[in-house]
Amino acid sequence: MDIKPYKKEAEYSYTLGAFPTFELLDAKPECVEEVIVHSSFTDRVKLEEKAADISAKIGKGGRTDSSIRIVENDRLISKLSDKENVYVIGVFRKFQCSLDGDHRHIVLVNPGNMGNLGTIIRTACGFGYYDLAIIEPAADIFNPKTVRASMGSLFRIRHERFPDFDSYLERFCKDDERGRNLYPFMLDGSSSLKEAKRPDSERFSLIFGNEATGLPAEFSGYGQPLRIEQTEYVDSLNLTIAAGIGMYEFTK
Amino acid sequence: MDIKPYKKEAEYSYTLGAFPTFELLDAKPECVEEVIVHSSFTDRVKLEEKAADISAKIGKGGRTDSSIRIVENDRLISKLSDKENVYVIGVFRKFQCSLDGDHRHIVLVNPGNMGNLGTIIRTACGFGYYDLAIIEPAADIFNPKTVRASMGSLFRIRHERFPDFDSYLERFCKDDERGRNLYPFMLDGSSSLKEAKRPDSERFSLIFGNEATGLPAEFSGYGQPLRIEQTEYVDSLNLTIAAGIGMYEFTK
Repeated sequence: MDIKPYKKEAEYSYTLGAFPTFELLDAKPECVEEVIVHSSFTDRVKLEEKAADISAKIGKGGRTDSSIRIVENDRLISKLSDKENVYVIGVFRKFQCSLDGDHRHIVLVNPGNMGNLGTIIRTACGFGYYDLAIIEPAADIFNPKTVRASMGSLFRIRHERFPDFDSYLERFCKDDERGRNLYPFMLDGSSSLKEAKRPDSERFSLIFGNEATGLPAEFSGYGQPLRIEQTEYVDSLNLTIAAGIGMYEFTK
Repeated sequence: MDIKPYKKEAEYSYTLGAFPTFELLDAKPECVEEVIVHSSFTDRVKLEEKAADISAKIGKGGRTDSSIRIVENDRLISKLSDKENVYVIGVFRKFQCSLDGDHRHIVLVNPGNMGNLGTIIRTACGFGYYDLAIIEPAADIFNPKTVRASMGSLFRIRHERFPDFDSYLERFCKDDERGRNLYPFMLDGSSSLKEAKRPDSERFSLIFGNEATGLPAEFSGYGQPLRIEQTEYVDSLNLTIAAGIGMYEFTK
């Protein structure tokens, strides 16, 4: 396999570092192509045990080539990672998912920053939101920077990209007669998050806009627009903080 | 004035970008040394009006040199800012503050990342926490990266550094007979944040540990240790998210 620095249009991406690599092996073993280790990686025994364990499981699942290869290659590690200390890299095939219409969703409209996208995925996974809709244009969810910021949580959630918000609505609101509660988070949302009426089912969506511009004004026409009360001294909260607070509040 | 790229031991630091520079002018005009603009900066008229307005106010306060100088210098802008698009930079003298013992505090124990420190300051300012204690060793609060991540909120809060947590306790808990409620945030905190007993006065402190290591185990002996409930699928929440949720919950 010819392994090159990451490109958006590539079929493969990488986990940089031990934590996201172990998450990849645990949660998406069927997508792992190989694991590259540095000669000074200290957790190699644990990694080999995990890989053998998983290879056996995948083998049972009927995959022909069931072994996960571990390759030592210092030069390749430094070629794929930027300046930071990386001793292990997982090579994985990008995968597609389909959101579950029965569950709570996070909807990110035009997220622009890979670090923020990854941090939101990590928080979502921590609070039990396993379905993420991304409205394009958006930061690349498979970029190694996103994967790293997610601490590998990306492998534990379903995510799906939509060309526009209407396509999302079409699929999960209009085509499902049971309906879905929409909560757009906006600086001028008509209800305070603290006082907002909670949904009566798991079919609800928390919707967040772009880092710089927030949600377009027309979102105030969807569902129950929410604002997080804040002082006059800040322009807005950071997107990842607003999303974290929204998710936390809705787990009650 | 001889202006050099930022150093930790320097007496001066910089705001990179228009938003934090306007915040500096509004909230800490007495610390402004000068403002550097790029020839293509589009908001120069607004900046000059603001500077004249503030110069007049400072003059009334009795300062001899009351004018805030605006200097156009494209080379200096690119020398002080890194690769990003910066068109205005405020040069300010570092300042010292003293925390208010009657107010709620945020206490950060060994925060390691300047971006996170700045983001926490921005969130604190947004939720009305205007007193920040920093337990050293810690990231540099005056580094332009911290200032930028704070979006200039740094100029609206009091902050004070302490060599260790005991020095903080000595000053605000032991020397004040009215006492102070302490809430260390820990993964194994004995109370859930949602169910925690709220303080009966504004004299309380929310305490957060380092990004990688959290709070040392001995903090479970202080006040009411709190945990934020999360799934088994993440190691922990990102520090800025945990701090944001804690601050939000305690504004209720």
